[in-house]
Amino acid sequence: MTQTTEPLGIAVVGAGYWGPNLVRNFQASEQFRLRWLCDLDVDRAQRVLGGYSTVQATADYAAVLADPSVDAVAVATPAGTHLDIALAALRAGKHVLVEKPLAATYADGVRLVNEAEERGLTLMCDHTYCYTPAVGRIRELVRSGELGEIHFVDSVRINLGLVQKDIDVMWDLAPHDLSILDFILPDNVEPVAVAAHGADPIGAGQACVAYLTLQLNTGAIAHVHVNWLSPTKVRTTMVGGAKRTLIWDDLNPAQRVAIFDRGVDLSAPQEIGADERRDMLVSYRSGDMVAPAIGEKEALRSMVDEFGDSIRQRRAPLTDGRAGLRVLDILEAASRSLEFKGAVVGLRAGR
Amino acid sequence: MTQTTEPLGIAVVGAGYWGPNLVRNFQASEQFRLRWLCDLDVDRAQRVLGGYSTVQATADYAAVLADPSVDAVAVATPAGTHLDIALAALRAGKHVLVEKPLAATYADGVRLVNEAEERGLTLMCDHTYCYTPAVGRIRELVRSGELGEIHFVDSVRINLGLVQKDIDVMWDLAPHDLSILDFILPDNVEPVAVAAHGADPIGAGQACVAYLTLQLNTGAIAHVHVNWLSPTKVRTTMVGGAKRTLIWDDLNPAQRVAIFDRGVDLSAPQEIGADERRDMLVSYRSGDMVAPAIGEKEALRSMVDEFGDSIRQRRAPLTDGRAGLRVLDILEAASRSLEFKGAVVGLRAGR
Amino acid sequence: MTQTTEPLGIAVVGAGYWGPNLVRNFQASEQFRLRWLCDLDVDRAQRVLGGYSTVQATADYAAVLADPSVDAVAVATPAGTHLDIALAALRAGKHVLVEKPLAATYADGVRLVNEAEERGLTLMCDHTYCYTPAVGRIRELVRSGELGEIHFVDSVRINLGLVQKDIDVMWDLAPHDLSILDFILPDNVEPVAVAAHGADPIGAGQACVAYLTLQLNTGAIAHVHVNWLSPTKVRTTMVGGAKRTLIWDDLNPAQRVAIFDRGVDLSAPQEIGADERRDMLVSYRSGDMVAPAIGEKEALRSMVDEFGDSIRQRRAPLTDGRAGLRVLDILEAASRSLEFKGAVVGLRAGR
Amino acid sequence: MTQTTEPLGIAVVGAGYWGPNLVRNFQASEQFRLRWLCDLDVDRAQRVLGGYSTVQATADYAAVLADPSVDAVAVATPAGTHLDIALAALRAGKHVLVEKPLAATYADGVRLVNEAEERGLTLMCDHTYCYTPAVGRIRELVRSGELGEIHFVDSVRINLGLVQKDIDVMWDLAPHDLSILDFILPDNVEPVAVAAHGADPIGAGQACVAYLTLQLNTGAIAHVHVNWLSPTKVRTTMVGGAKRTLIWDDLNPAQRVAIFDRGVDLSAPQEIGADERRDMLVSYRSGDMVAPAIGEKEALRSMVDEFGDSIRQRRAPLTDGRAGLRVLDILEAASRSLEFKGAVVGLRAGR
Repeated sequence: MTQTTEPLGIAVVGAGYWGPNLVRNFQASEQFRLRWLCDLDVDRAQRVLGGYSTVQATADYAAVLADPSVDAVAVATPAGTHLDIALAALRAGKHVLVEKPLAATYADGVRLVNEAEERGLTLMCDHTYCYTPAVGRIRELVRSGELGEIHFVDSVRINLGLVQKDIDVMWDLAPHDLSILDFILPDNVEPVAVAAHGADPIGAGQACVAYLTLQLNTGAIAHVHVNWLSPTKVRTTMVGGAKRTLIWDDLNPAQRVAIFDRGVDLSAPQEIGADERRDMLVSYRSGDMVAPAIGEKEALRSMVDEFGDSIRQRRAPLTDGRAGLRVLDILEAASRSLEFKGAVVGLRAGR
Repeated sequence: MTQTTEPLGIAVVGAGYWGPNLVRNFQASEQFRLRWLCDLDVDRAQRVLGGYSTVQATADYAAVLADPSVDAVAVATPAGTHLDIALAALRAGKHVLVEKPLAATYADGVRLVNEAEERGLTLMCDHTYCYTPAVGRIRELVRSGELGEIHFVDSVRINLGLVQKDIDVMWDLAPHDLSILDFILPDNVEPVAVAAHGADPIGAGQACVAYLTLQLNTGAIAHVHVNWLSPTKVRTTMVGGAKRTLIWDDLNPAQRVAIFDRGVDLSAPQEIGADERRDMLVSYRSGDMVAPAIGEKEALRSMVDEFGDSIRQRRAPLTDGRAGLRVLDILEAASRSLEFKGAVVGLRAGR
Repeated sequence: MTQTTEPLGIAVVGAGYWGPNLVRNFQASEQFRLRWLCDLDVDRAQRVLGGYSTVQATADYAAVLADPSVDAVAVATPAGTHLDIALAALRAGKHVLVEKPLAATYADGVRLVNEAEERGLTLMCDHTYCYTPAVGRIRELVRSGELGEIHFVDSVRINLGLVQKDIDVMWDLAPHDLSILDFILPDNVEPVAVAAHGADPIGAGQACVAYLTLQLNTGAIAHVHVNWLSPTKVRTTMVGGAKRTLIWDDLNPAQRVAIFDRGVDLSAPQEIGADERRDMLVSYRSGDMVAPAIGEKEALRSMVDEFGDSIRQRRAPLTDGRAGLRVLDILEAASRSLEFKGAVVGLRAGR
Repeated sequence: MTQTTEPLGIAVVGAGYWGPNLVRNFQASEQFRLRWLCDLDVDRAQRVLGGYSTVQATADYAAVLADPSVDAVAVATPAGTHLDIALAALRAGKHVLVEKPLAATYADGVRLVNEAEERGLTLMCDHTYCYTPAVGRIRELVRSGELGEIHFVDSVRINLGLVQKDIDVMWDLAPHDLSILDFILPDNVEPVAVAAHGADPIGAGQACVAYLTLQLNTGAIAHVHVNWLSPTKVRTTMVGGAKRTLIWDDLNPAQRVAIFDRGVDLSAPQEIGADERRDMLVSYRSGDMVAPAIGEKEALRSMVDEFGDSIRQRRAPLTDGRAGLRVLDILEAASRSLEFKGAVVGLRAGR
């Protein structure tokens, strides 16, 4: 698929939780040549590389940026550091991949997007889930109209999670659901307002349980449940459409996506009055369920490929900086709603 | 358990969806003698009784109330008719069992509760789920403190449901979740406010998808998801506690209740500062799960027994009229919230 | 479907485990008028009928047979009594429905079949599972060729079962699987030999765990696992075909039948040698799974309908006495195999 | 746990399906220093190592054996080559780890065991599953007596599998189940005979579906179902004991092991006659289920650790050559049974 003349030199910054996954996938891709793994803690970087690697570990980010063999930088550090690290890379002329969320604030995100656009560089947000085969298929099903108009989206992402010091459960987990929502919805459908409810029953200092309700411009509703205190892991998204409804269960490898030809139909012939209408014309479909065969390609591998392709083809990646901004917009609005006990907060317009 | 000298005469009113279940269970109980099945459509009543029954079908409710062998009346008619039918029965000196919700409005419910209390008659609300062995066990676990302080409750009750003409999905399904919540919580824990979000994407004229968020007086959160448009049936409630968390899956007969010794613990020794605290003292339990053996007695059978016992013992039933009122209070507040786009609405005080 | 002029008079014999289900279903059918429930223990019969029934309980089987309003008799007594009770009924000119297994021995079964055929009376075996909507659909899928040639059938029917005094787990549970197998296979496919392995690890006096392996005339294999000692209940049958494979999970109401377009294909072009063939021409299909919408009609209700229809239409019922004989043939052969430590035992020819 | 002075030099032979997993795990272990990856196809070996490795790829096995820095050899080649490769390694004074099955025949396996014992070298069989945390726990539960005397073992290992050219499904998959059985059973319990039934419905040239029934010296029964044609993947083992029964579901990470306090109890007081006994004294336990918390350490990592520990401590590894021999014994007997249409074949005595 990707005709590579010469691999792109890449450096990964951050050898913490996510960095090792990037290291592994960039090494496996023929599009890239991994030059550096950079971390303030160079020993940690070395441990991630292991005892058999020819890749260089370093704590000297300036040296990485100065290396002309480095074409692109992948940033896997805490969100608060994204602005500085990514901005420096862009200013050094490097393409940039950033972990979600794009930045700590919407305003920071805007700075990154502007910088990249001015310089003609690729800025990509690693919305990993968008690159799973399942979400790819869901996007097709939604955008091709096979599900019909979208009626509701219900997403649950809960497990016994690492309670974080600096961010609440919403900023930790909901970016996944929000980036998926952003990815699958047709271009003319978008969230316009959000309300968030949360609780910190263990006294952690921030919400450990949160519920987000998004109002879409079509009258549809989207809802996200994120929770660090659940004893079991659930990762399920239901996408209800006028024609079909699908359930994505990311933890069921034997049947990740199930498409149900079931639903409620409401038809309204002209000749009868409004009152009788509701009574008489509700009908129910309870047809078959189809679980399509879906490949098992690792999402990060596809994400890395998309990063390479978008650089070479000088086009915006599927999950570009603007997609990252849209997610930040919702997160910030949701935080404001949380602060104001669930008040509905409007979103910035436009995809 | 129930020493019966002579059975109580009972009449069932309403031969629609739920009535036949009451007919079957009153017939199976030695505490009761079923005298009448009453429905405006006497043919329907006769069909419910079948071709081999000695029970009388009738459309004449006055005759039922005039029958001195009738000690109690069970009302399984639409909510809008509960007030009249139940009030007439109480005024005729009959004990009354009413389907959920107790009445169409809180005000109506108050009239029923007052009438029954003034006359010293039993008024019971058929919160059926409270009589399942699973919910009984959950109530024990919560109220005995085995779960520790309750942190969150998350309830999902969705399926491809009968879209109703007069009530929305919240009034149709959430009474189950709210009555269960009311039943299991310790006496000193109660909801103080509710916010509700809903959508009617199919144009049914009322919400077909709804999310309720309840704030408890302890800072805990409860959440209910009800949905008529889901292609699959889910009936799951998670009750998160400081010590343990349980999951009740009503559709998994092999493992309805699972109790997890998993959670996040936060301890705060005196000697260290507030800042360091959060960092250092979060710990995680990931212990065993226990699925207790739970009997399979039919809930309606236990409900009928409780009705008989409470009449004979001249005591309030477990789900008395006041429990029905508390549920109505939340439903009305949630409707107001829905009307005001999710605004938080306070509840009347007191259990 | 069933044009009834006048209902058939029916008597149920046996008020034990299964009898009450027959009583309920015959009462619900417009084709039948239930006249008697007969049991040696007349109090038990009365308890089954309950306190509101107009049906007569009796211990006097002769009186039942002498009643000219009784057209048919349904026998739900222990297998050892089937011969006498069913024979008496046939000789009294009554049509007969018998619980599985048809009789205690193949020889006894033959006597019943002959008696019914000589008298032109309907003899039906209550192979209940054959009347579930799921098995009906499976039969269609197999016999229409949609699955392709059948390669293997694997059936598991295990749970913590009532250890019986007189029969082993094979005679208790395997009749279900064997009658289903008999029902779904095309007319030209049949078992030709059986081997059985069992164990009685708790010292119950007969096998509590058993495995049956059936060799089919086509080279396919069928296998049945029955077990009284399993802590969980499993009722799963896999039917593997050349084109598709289906899994029936009777305990999963949301997805009882799943049809997989997955399998191994082996094609052998003429031009290449035998050695290379296997190497080169194995290919794998891993297509979609479809879970067809299947109704939820109670099997016993359909069984009762079939009994009535076959009597009125003077035709053999779907599960006639001969089907019962074929099941008995396999059970007897399997018992012999068990006795001889798993030796393969041939079956009588012919469907 | 493992006090390492200097890492052991290791060479992996075979860069096919399993070799890469060994490469990864030996690299991650501090006990070992990976020196070589050897494969007849040196390009394949190089591809497995990837473009960033300092490990040497080679096709020259003699050079590997001649390298004094190589203390041990791990053999991940087809079974037919195990004898030659392992024997050469042992003769060169290297410790040897061999993929399952130990060798192509029992006789070959004996030669390896003898060679290793004569030379005082470690010979270990990579029965990987024995090193999963789940199987480790099961072994404890069985051998500590917590389950009581073992009554039955039922193992299912089926999926759409790679149809092999040289070995049937039994030799491909059953070694897993047989090595686990060997690992978990108490020392005084052992299989004494086996019967096998199989089918090759697709004309692959060898059995694609097989059922093994093992008779244990205690009267208990063990059964293994292996199948290459199943559209879904199942890996479940049930271990039934006199006190408790456990189910291991390897594909359910949230609940791999479930221990049920359910079963049938049979007690026989002296004073009553044999006939009444069975009637009266069967009782049923249906107690709780416990799913113990079990860690998620990678099995291969533990296996590699055990290989290192056993070499350093000069002791037999948990799954030594003799364990490999016992598995081969059963496989050969099962093949003979298959050949003779399911005849029961006795096993060599002794663990």
